[in-house]
Amino acid sequence: MSTKILLDEDEIPRQWYNLAADLPTPMQPPLGPDGNPIRPEDLAPVFPMNLIEQEVSQERWIDIPEEVLEILYRWRPSPLRRAVHLEKFLGTPARIYYKDEGVSPPGSHKPNTAVAQAWYNKQFGIKKITTETGAGQWGSALAFACALLGLECKVYMVRISFDQKPFRKLMMNVWGATCVASPSPETQAGRDILAKMPDTPGSLGIAISEAIEEAVSDASGQTRYALGSVLNHVMLHQTIIGLEAKKQLSKAGEKKVDVVIGCAGGGSNFAGIAFPFVADKINGAQIEIYPVEPSSCPTLTRAPFTYDHGDVAKMTPLLPMYTLGHGFVSPPIHAGGLRYHGIAPLVSQAAVEGLLTPKAYGQLQCYQSALIWAKTEGFIPAPETSHAIAAAIDEANKAKEEGKEKVILFGWSGHGLMDLMGYANFMDGKLIDFPLPEEDLKASLKSLEGLPKAPVVKSGRW
Amino acid sequence: MSTKILLDEDEIPRQWYNLAADLPTPMQPPLGPDGNPIRPEDLAPVFPMNLIEQEVSQERWIDIPEEVLEILYRWRPSPLRRAVHLEKFLGTPARIYYKDEGVSPPGSHKPNTAVAQAWYNKQFGIKKITTETGAGQWGSALAFACALLGLECKVYMVRISFDQKPFRKLMMNVWGATCVASPSPETQAGRDILAKMPDTPGSLGIAISEAIEEAVSDASGQTRYALGSVLNHVMLHQTIIGLEAKKQLSKAGEKKVDVVIGCAGGGSNFAGIAFPFVADKINGAQIEIYPVEPSSCPTLTRAPFTYDHGDVAKMTPLLPMYTLGHGFVSPPIHAGGLRYHGIAPLVSQAAVEGLLTPKAYGQLQCYQSALIWAKTEGFIPAPETSHAIAAAIDEANKAKEEGKEKVILFGWSGHGLMDLMGYANFMDGKLIDFPLPEEDLKASLKSLEGLPKAPVVKSGRW
Repeated sequence: MSTKILLDEDEIPRQWYNLAADLPTPMQPPLGPDGNPIRPEDLAPVFPMNLIEQEVSQERWIDIPEEVLEILYRWRPSPLRRAVHLEKFLGTPARIYYKDEGVSPPGSHKPNTAVAQAWYNKQFGIKKITTETGAGQWGSALAFACALLGLECKVYMVRISFDQKPFRKLMMNVWGATCVASPSPETQAGRDILAKMPDTPGSLGIAISEAIEEAVSDASGQTRYALGSVLNHVMLHQTIIGLEAKKQLSKAGEKKVDVVIGCAGGGSNFAGIAFPFVADKINGAQIEIYPVEPSSCPTLTRAPFTYDHGDVAKMTPLLPMYTLGHGFVSPPIHAGGLRYHGIAPLVSQAAVEGLLTPKAYGQLQCYQSALIWAKTEGFIPAPETSHAIAAAIDEANKAKEEGKEKVILFGWSGHGLMDLMGYANFMDGKLIDFPLPEEDLKASLKSLEGLPKAPVVKSGRW
Repeated sequence: MSTKILLDEDEIPRQWYNLAADLPTPMQPPLGPDGNPIRPEDLAPVFPMNLIEQEVSQERWIDIPEEVLEILYRWRPSPLRRAVHLEKFLGTPARIYYKDEGVSPPGSHKPNTAVAQAWYNKQFGIKKITTETGAGQWGSALAFACALLGLECKVYMVRISFDQKPFRKLMMNVWGATCVASPSPETQAGRDILAKMPDTPGSLGIAISEAIEEAVSDASGQTRYALGSVLNHVMLHQTIIGLEAKKQLSKAGEKKVDVVIGCAGGGSNFAGIAFPFVADKINGAQIEIYPVEPSSCPTLTRAPFTYDHGDVAKMTPLLPMYTLGHGFVSPPIHAGGLRYHGIAPLVSQAAVEGLLTPKAYGQLQCYQSALIWAKTEGFIPAPETSHAIAAAIDEANKAKEEGKEKVILFGWSGHGLMDLMGYANFMDGKLIDFPLPEEDLKASLKSLEGLPKAPVVKSGRW
C-alpha cells in the first residue's frame, strides 16, 4: 500500500471553487466608513480590479489562468500522504490522511494565493506589491511569487515574529523582497502606534494598516496591496488544496471522508482544505469539519459574529465576521499565523450556518502532538499546523475508543523548519498556555463599540 | 510537458548498486596502524558486523531491506525535476534535470544512508549511535533515523557550524538526539585539541575522532559509530538517488544523458547521483561526470591520491583516497558539508581511473548561481548544492555557445532553508573566496609524511 498519493500535473484542478455560490444564505456586504455597502470601485486604490471582480464573484467555478498553473507546477499537485506510522503509534482504526503543503518553496500553503495575486496584479500593470506578514509564511510566499513574476515586494512583518524568526526575513531577501518590522517608522500608522506603545510586539492588524497606507499613497498608481488571508479571493485560490485532496482520496479508494480538519487563523489554510468538503456537506454529505484555532485567540469559539475592521487603524472596510475586536493583541504564542483578531467572512458565514464545528487548543498540547508527529511520521510541522495535528490525534483516539474506522483528512499547512525556536522553548519547559481570560475578551470586544452589527442570518438547515 | 517526473512507490529501486564490483582495477585495502590491511573484525568495535560486510562486499547489487524501504517511502522516490525556468532564463538549448533530495524530512540526501545504517545497527542489537556532523545535514539525518527506529543518538557538531547554524542542533533535539559542539570537553580527543587550540573552528576530522572515541569506550558494547560519508557502504546506500534518476530520465523520454554533476565533500552525494552513470561509462557510454568541490578545499582537483586517516586523531584506518592531509582545517566557507580533507575511496578510485572530471568553484560564484536559481526555479538550495548549480549553469552556457542540445543531470542535495545566514552574508558583500594558497596546501600535506603511499593503479582505459 502506498503512503503517498500523487497526482500528475495534468490531473491538477483547472478551476478554483467559490463557496459563496453555494452558501444557503447570501454573504453580507463589506461596509464603508459611512456604514453603506462599499462598491467594487471603492477598493480600486488598494487592489487591482481583476482581483476585486473575483472578490465579489458569485460564480461557483473560476478558471485558473494557465500561467498561474505553470508556476504552481513547481510543487503542485502536492502529495496527499497517509500517516500510517502515527496510526500505528496510536493504535487507531482511523485512517489519517494529510495534504502536504510544506513542499512549496517557501514551505507553506501561502504561495497558492501569492502566485495568483501577483499574477493578477501584473496583468493589471502593477509594478510593486505591499503586504503584511505574521509568522512570515505569507511574506515569504509573496516575496517568492513576486520574484518569479518580476515584481517589487515590500513586507511589513509583525515585530514579535521579526525578532523570533529572523530567518523568514532572510528568505524574503533571497527572493529580492524588502522586509521591515511593524510597527515601523515608515508609515503614519506605524509612527502613531510607536508613539503610543514603543514596546508593542505588533500585530497583523497594525501591519495591515502600514502596508495599505504605503500602497494607496504611491502617487504613480503602480503599487497595490495584497492580503494573505481573510478575503474571498484568497479563500478561492486556496481551494486547489481541497480539490486536489478529493481526487487523491478517491485514488486511494476512499469513498467518503468523515472528518476534515484545518488550523484557522485568518482562515485561508482552513478554507483551502475544507471548502470543497463544505460543498459536499451542503449537498447532504455527513462530514464533520473542524477549524482549529489557539485557545489564546479564540475567534470562532468565543467571539461574536459582527462587523469589524480587518486592521487596527481601521483602514479596511468593515467585514462581517467572527472577531475578537480589531484592538485585540494576541499573547506571544509561536503560531504567529493564528494570531489574527478576525477570520474570513466566508469561513464565518459557514460557521454561522452551522456547517463547521470550531475547536480551540492550547499551544502545549499542540507542541506535544507535533513531537509525536516528528518521531512517527518524521516531518517537523509548523506550529500552526500542530493545531490541526492535535485535533487529528484527538479524533483518531476517539475513533479508537468508539472502535470506528473513520477517515480523517487534515491540512498540513507547512513545515516547521523555520520555527525550531518554539520547539526549543517547549522542550525547555519555557512555554505556557494563554487561555484568553474572560475579562480580556470583554476588554478586546470594546473596540467593536459603535460599529454596525452584522445580523446572524442562517438557513437553519444545520 | 511535465516538469516533475515522479515514480510510484512500487517503482522504487529494490537493490543498491555497488561500484566496487565494476571498477576495472580492485580497490586498495584500508590499512591498520601497523601498515597491514585491516580485517573486518578489526572494525567490529566501531561498526556492526552487518555493515562491515557491506563495506567489503564485491557484490554488484545488494538488496534493500523491506523495512528500510518502508521508512524511505516517507519521501522516496524523490522527484526528478526539469529546470525549464532556468533553461529559459539562460536561453540554453540544454535540458537541465535535477534530482531533488531536499524533500526528505531533514531536507537533504543524508537520510538515505542514515536510515539504512540505523536499521542495520538495530538489527545487530545496538542501542546508541554516535556520529559527527559538519553543516548539520548528516547529524539531523541520523537523529531523524534514530527517532523513527527508537535508537539513542549523540552528535558531535563541528563548532563553526554549531555556531553558524544553531537551528540544525534544534532539529536534532526535536528528533530526540543530543548534539554538542566539537571539539568538546566530553572526549580525550576533544580535550587534547582544546588544550592546544582553544579557539579552533573545529573540523570534521576532529569530530569524527570524538564520536569514535565515545562509541568504542562504551563498556556495554551497545554503542557504535556511524559515518555520513566516505565509506563504501555509505556510497552504496546513496546510489538509490542515481538509480531512481535513471528510471525517471527514461520516463521523461531521454535516451541518453551527457553530463552528470554532483557536489562533492566526503563524496556521498556525488556517489549517489553519479555511480549508476559511472557504471554506464565503464560499459562504454559517453558521459561527462563532474564532482564539484570548493576551491578552498580542492581535494580532487589539487591533492594527491595516497593513504590517509579519515580523522585528525588518527583513530580511523588509513584509506586510499585523494586527501589534503588529515591536518587540513578548511577556511570557514558556508558549505560546511564540503569542508572535509579527503574524499571517499570509491570516488577516489573512479577519479584515478579517469572516469571523473573534477571541478572546483569559489563560493561567490556558487551563491550567485544559487540566487539565480531561487529567482527562476523558486527553491532555495543549500550552499553545498549551489556548487552543483554553478557547474550546471556553466555547462548550460557552454551548450548555448556550442549550440548543442545537451542533457544535464545534477544532484540537488538539499534545500538551504537552514542556511540563510550564508545568503545574508553574501548579499551584504561580507563573503570572500578562499582559493587555497599553494603554501597552505604544502603545509597541510605535511600531515601525510610517514604514512604509507597508495600507488596510483589504473586500467588506462580512460
